[in-house]
Amino acid sequence: MTRWIEETLHPHWRVGLEASRVLHEAGTGHQHLVIFANPTWGTVLMLDGVCQLTTNDEFVYHEMMAHVPLMALEKPKRVLVIGGGDGGVLREVLKHPSVTKAVLCEIDRTVIDAVLAHMPEVPGKAFEDQRTEVVIADGQKYVAETDERFDAVMVDSSEPIGPSAALHAREFLAGCKRALKPGGVLVTQNGLPFLFPERLHGTTAALASLFKRVSPYLCVQPSYFGGPFALNWASDDKHLLKLDAKDLEKRRRKRGIDELKCWTPEVHVAAFALPAYMQSLVDGAIAHAECDDEQSAKVEAPSDEAKTRTKTKQRE
Amino acid sequence: MTRWIEETLHPHWRVGLEASRVLHEAGTGHQHLVIFANPTWGTVLMLDGVCQLTTNDEFVYHEMMAHVPLMALEKPKRVLVIGGGDGGVLREVLKHPSVTKAVLCEIDRTVIDAVLAHMPEVPGKAFEDQRTEVVIADGQKYVAETDERFDAVMVDSSEPIGPSAALHAREFLAGCKRALKPGGVLVTQNGLPFLFPERLHGTTAALASLFKRVSPYLCVQPSYFGGPFALNWASDDKHLLKLDAKDLEKRRRKRGIDELKCWTPEVHVAAFALPAYMQSLVDGAIAHAECDDEQSAKVEAPSDEAKTRTKTKQRE
Repeated sequence: MTRWIEETLHPHWRVGLEASRVLHEAGTGHQHLVIFANPTWGTVLMLDGVCQLTTNDEFVYHEMMAHVPLMALEKPKRVLVIGGGDGGVLREVLKHPSVTKAVLCEIDRTVIDAVLAHMPEVPGKAFEDQRTEVVIADGQKYVAETDERFDAVMVDSSEPIGPSAALHAREFLAGCKRALKPGGVLVTQNGLPFLFPERLHGTTAALASLFKRVSPYLCVQPSYFGGPFALNWASDDKHLLKLDAKDLEKRRRKRGIDELKCWTPEVHVAAFALPAYMQSLVDGAIAHAECDDEQSAKVEAPSDEAKTRTKTKQRE
Repeated sequence: MTRWIEETLHPHWRVGLEASRVLHEAGTGHQHLVIFANPTWGTVLMLDGVCQLTTNDEFVYHEMMAHVPLMALEKPKRVLVIGGGDGGVLREVLKHPSVTKAVLCEIDRTVIDAVLAHMPEVPGKAFEDQRTEVVIADGQKYVAETDERFDAVMVDSSEPIGPSAALHAREFLAGCKRALKPGGVLVTQNGLPFLFPERLHGTTAALASLFKRVSPYLCVQPSYFGGPFALNWASDDKHLLKLDAKDLEKRRRKRGIDELKCWTPEVHVAAFALPAYMQSLVDGAIAHAECDDEQSAKVEAPSDEAKTRTKTKQRE
């Protein structure tokens, strides 16, 4: 008899997936993990009743989290991935030949083990790559204490419940900034803004109080019900968002990266165009953060630029 | 006790929505219709076990179907909507002051009546507008027989099952072309290409055998599970896709259209950037159609342009 596994996070709707075979199910100490086969979606990984990834659509999110910052950087060398125990983001990061070191900091060793055992196509050979260093640790603690400095930090967390809750707070984001080289890029997953606008608002406001440029961008993960999936972008380098599709395509070829399954130069540029309902939320969050800045003068003194920055911060 | 209403179309996954109150449920003679309230989504309309619209997210699809063709046209006057009995596309069409006539051709009168009774905010005053003409008829027959010619035809059909099945065939699309003025635009809904690539492939190939430019574009409808939602664009006017965000914003202001909830000039342009997996499917469909054209010489004689058109047809 076929078992159906349902997402349990939301009170008023639910997505159920047929589990034609359950491959692995366990309480990990950190969270509840189940891996199962579905005829449409391939192999599915759920944590705490929320679909994390399916082997048939994981490329969307993993490519967009890795390649948008790395294609924007001229020569990214050192990359930190927080969370991301499935290895999908790591796999994409390692496609960039300039990367000399990629640290994956995951709190839950059992996620990595379960993925290697039951969905090895997701990490591919990423965990065997000699540039990879796996650190089993609390990401918040890692960024607060590490002496390393990175060109890009990617926060591939799960929802802000369970062990990932701390990875959505300003304190953690400030730690990420600490771990960045000047002009480096921080990218975080920011959930589904149509259903959870407060998450995009909160992270954008926090990032805007820490960085000179904040600019959320979107991808569409077919297995995540509820609209576009937001990633957030933060950097002190204002020029990284000015590349056009021609520059980006030139860069992809020069790096010898094969054509990808989701990312194209046009998709890269288009991802920053937010639907009006989301753009006004982002503008509001940035204005809010600046208002706080001006009152507390914690981040920078008010300047001529400040007056126009609300509208341009995520565009320039 | 709360009732849950589930989509029944798909064998391996299902979306269930809480029905805190069922407002209307009936077999209409054409299809099964249910309207119910949900705390997150507002009022929900399902036809034949497929979610058609919710009052909280309908603006996305309706704005993107109406404004992308109408903002691209310099002075759209006459518009035909096939299907769309909820009146949402019609509502957006009528925001353009140059529109002098909007015909809505819907096969199922009971859809219009049920929406007016239970979700009147969707059509708003669109059905009372003196520019509106409602025709209760089979859309396929209408486009084949009408003497009217339109600047834009919008096919707001449901899935290719039940009464909408005919609205996805080449014969119907040829009828739509017949009902267009030269250089007019046809837009059709094309489903969820991640899950149903054959639909986007089939419609694109059919349109490419009928029109000089075919260029699918995307929006993300939060209540449709399964990835980006495709609309297809077809026209013999190659220049309509060359407008940039500045031109489009100028046009919106000149027409006195208030800022919208999804459509922005940037979103308009970005919507045509397809993820790589979809772009290659579209390129393949267009190449396939041209191959057929060349063999049968039905549409146009091979020209110098033909060699390069596969790559440029949906871009220029």
